[in-house]
Formats: sequence, structure tokens, C-alpha cells
Amino acid sequence: MNIDIATLFPEMLENYLSQSIVGRARAKDIFTVKCHDIRAYTKDKHRRVDDTPYSEQKGMLMQCDPIFNCFEAVTEGRERPHVIYMSPQGKTLTQQRCRELAAMDNIFILCGHYEGVDERIIETLVDEEISIGDYVLTGGELPALVLVDSVVRMLEGTLSQPDCYEDESHYNGLLEYPQYTRPEVWHDMRVPEILLSGHHANIKKWRHEQALITTAKKRPELLEKLELTDEDLAIIHKVVDFNK
Amino acid sequence: MNIDIATLFPEMLENYLSQSIVGRARAKDIFTVKCHDIRAYTKDKHRRVDDTPYSEQKGMLMQCDPIFNCFEAVTEGRERPHVIYMSPQGKTLTQQRCRELAAMDNIFILCGHYEGVDERIIETLVDEEISIGDYVLTGGELPALVLVDSVVRMLEGTLSQPDCYEDESHYNGLLEYPQYTRPEVWHDMRVPEILLSGHHANIKKWRHEQALITTAKKRPELLEKLELTDEDLAIIHKVVDFNK
Repeated sequence: MNIDIATLFPEMLENYLSQSIVGRARAKDIFTVKCHDIRAYTKDKHRRVDDTPYSEQKGMLMQCDPIFNCFEAVTEGRERPHVIYMSPQGKTLTQQRCRELAAMDNIFILCGHYEGVDERIIETLVDEEISIGDYVLTGGELPALVLVDSVVRMLEGTLSQPDCYEDESHYNGLLEYPQYTRPEVWHDMRVPEILLSGHHANIKKWRHEQALITTAKKRPELLEKLELTDEDLAIIHKVVDFNK
Repeated sequence: MNIDIATLFPEMLENYLSQSIVGRARAKDIFTVKCHDIRAYTKDKHRRVDDTPYSEQKGMLMQCDPIFNCFEAVTEGRERPHVIYMSPQGKTLTQQRCRELAAMDNIFILCGHYEGVDERIIETLVDEEISIGDYVLTGGELPALVLVDSVVRMLEGTLSQPDCYEDESHYNGLLEYPQYTRPEVWHDMRVPEILLSGHHANIKKWRHEQALITTAKKRPELLEKLELTDEDLAIIHKVVDFNK
């Protein structure tokens, strides 16, 4: 997979993309990523890339030309990539969408900054607008990193244990069950006995119950999307009174 | 406002926190942020901070002691901060919650990594678990940056034009209207005439209509939470057929 990111702040991204799990996946050539400085593509003699929006007293908007020139230069002679604009106007990112994007070969991510980009560049270039959530950020750089991180960790070879992500939150629609590690007793709190029992069927059952309970307590709206068994419902109703 | 962040990867965070709008707010002492390396607080002679989860074949879980020791050392002699654990099990972050957090004086953010943290550290230390969205990431570092970015930009003095964020997406529940900047004609596409008219009342009306239309097309579920006028509904129904 190839990822290109167009941004006014490439150094913000490079640092993160060289570290930890994502950095190691990159070093192992599981994917390639290049950050492109939009400012390098302006033809303005003052290297300007933004201007005030029409009929607006405040803020700056990124202009079409530097972004367009950057896209043309980066993709010249190559297959057209899928172009994503990180934007509060986009559809909210989900694990399902990350999985679909992980199957693509070429992605081009545009990061807005300040008040965003001229609408015409969206109409001309952008295939998909993605938001990472309903809150306002100073630019598209963190959202781009979130997208890359969540997609790259699903590529084969990124995680050392390939099935590692399968049990995790948002994979089967439930939150994760609580987990414990050594020491067995910490500040008078014991690891639940069942986890020390070695009885795998019981442990599996306990974990499913705990995942149900955790979800019912912390994110009850997630349960609405699931097909729950009568047994599941009985467990949930024992701990959470939805009529409250 | 003081923010402390406990992480295994402080250098991942420091770079971002020194740049752009957040970096400038920090340089202007609008807030302080310190990143603390949890690994510096382990008493294990191999500097271990994690171990395998009980009764689990895969992954590593962060242990209680290094996190607890880090928290104790950082907060010693100070008022207890509000402790946030960035976690897929948390409530989903919203602009409203960012605004509430921006009013706090002391926040301590714990970043998990690998499979997360021992459940007992959550029970002992954590006031609030926050998720930035329904997708899986390699750790809590990007979510911590998202939280800091969205909170800090609301602090007085961060944005050069203090009312800059008031019109933005997610402030009045609608997505933003399209924006345009120079040149007036780009690739045969003109800036909408009305924005060049100088007629402020009409422009305001047009923008409200465009915000309604954009929201109806891209994120219709946001409209359900709003009190719309009959006029608003007429505009929406002209462009979007909800019965489709």
C-alpha cells in the first residue's frame, strides 16, 4: 500500500510516522508513506498558500492551486489514487471503513488547516471526506495520522501476532472485557479467580459476559446494533436497569 | 491550564505539541503540558512496564505499578488532577465535552499502548475514559493529542481571532457552509455570485441554507438533534429526498 499525504506541516507527521508500530511497519516495507509540503507547490513569489475567504472577516482558507499542483506532481505517471480529505464535513470514520481502506493500493490524503480549503478543490479532486469525530481540531494532520494508524495496523505483517486485533474492541461490536497482568495481588486487589483457573471454556464465557456488562455500562448505544441472545439479554438486565 | 500526559512514547507527543497553533499557545503560556515517560517509573531491573495478560496467549498489558508510581510522582504536593484514560472503552469525545474539559485547571492523561492497561489501575486512578471514535489505534498517544488539540484551541488567547471558532462545524450543530477564496475563477469554476455581492443579510441567509444542505447531504443524522424551523425543513426537502 502507498499513502501520500499533502499538508502544510509535513514535519508534524514525519515524526509520528517513524515511530512505534507504524514506524516499524514502514521500515519493514509493509506500506510506504510520503508527506508532501503543499507550500513547495505554490507559484506565488511570497510562497503564499492561503487567502481570506470571500465575504468573511476572519480566518484563512487554503487556495486551490498549490493543492492541485501538489496532487498533479505527486501522482504524475501513476494510477490515480483514492483521494481523501480529512474534514469535519466528512462521514465519521469507523472500523469497517478502515478495513475497506486497508484493501486499497493507493491513497492520497489531503490535510486542511486554518479554515479549511476552497470548495472547488473538493469538487475537483476529492473522492471522499472523512471526519474522525464530532469535535473541532486545528487541522487535518492529527486526523490523517489517526487514519493511517488505524489502517496500517490491519495490514498483514504490521502486528507481530497477526490475530492480535481480532478480539479487540469494535471488532465484534462489544467493548473489550477487563484484562489483568502480574502481580496477582496489587494494592489488595486480586486478579479474578477464574482467570487463574486454567478452565478455558469458563474463561471464555466469563469474558463474553464481562464484555456485555462493560458495553452495557459504558456505551449502551452499541448494543442496539447487535443481535443478542436471550442469555446475553439476561446478563445485561442483571446489571443495568435500562428503565432508570 | 496544566496538562500532564503519561505515556511510553513521550517523544511521539513532544514533537506535535511544539508546533503550529498548539505549540504557539504553549509558548505563550496559555497552557502548560508535560509528557512523562512511564518507563522511568518502573522499579523492575530490566525496566519492564508490561507483561502478558492472565490467561491470554497474545499481546502485552501495561502493569499497574509503573503507571501508579508515575502518577504519584507527578502529582505529589499538588491538587489531584482530573484523570482521563484514552481508551476504546470510553465515552466518545464530543465538542461539548471538550468545552467542559477546557474549563478545568488540571488534567492528567494516561495513554495505553499494546493491549491496554491492567483493569485495577483504571479502578484506582481513572476518573473518566474517553474514546475519540469507533476505530482501533495502536495506542492512546494520538487520541491524547486529539484531546489536547481540541481543548487547547478553545482556551482564551489560542486563536488569534477569538471568535474564530464560533461559526465552525459542530458549534451550532450544522456542518459548515462551503467557502471560497481567490482567484474568483479557477479552472472555469466561479465563486458563487452572492459572495461577491456585498449584501450581508443575503449572504448570511445563503450560508445558513448551504449549511443545512451540506448537513442534509453528508451527515443527515445530525439534523435529528436540532430544532429546525419550517423554512429550514423546506430548504432541506428541496434537495434531499429522505424517502429514497
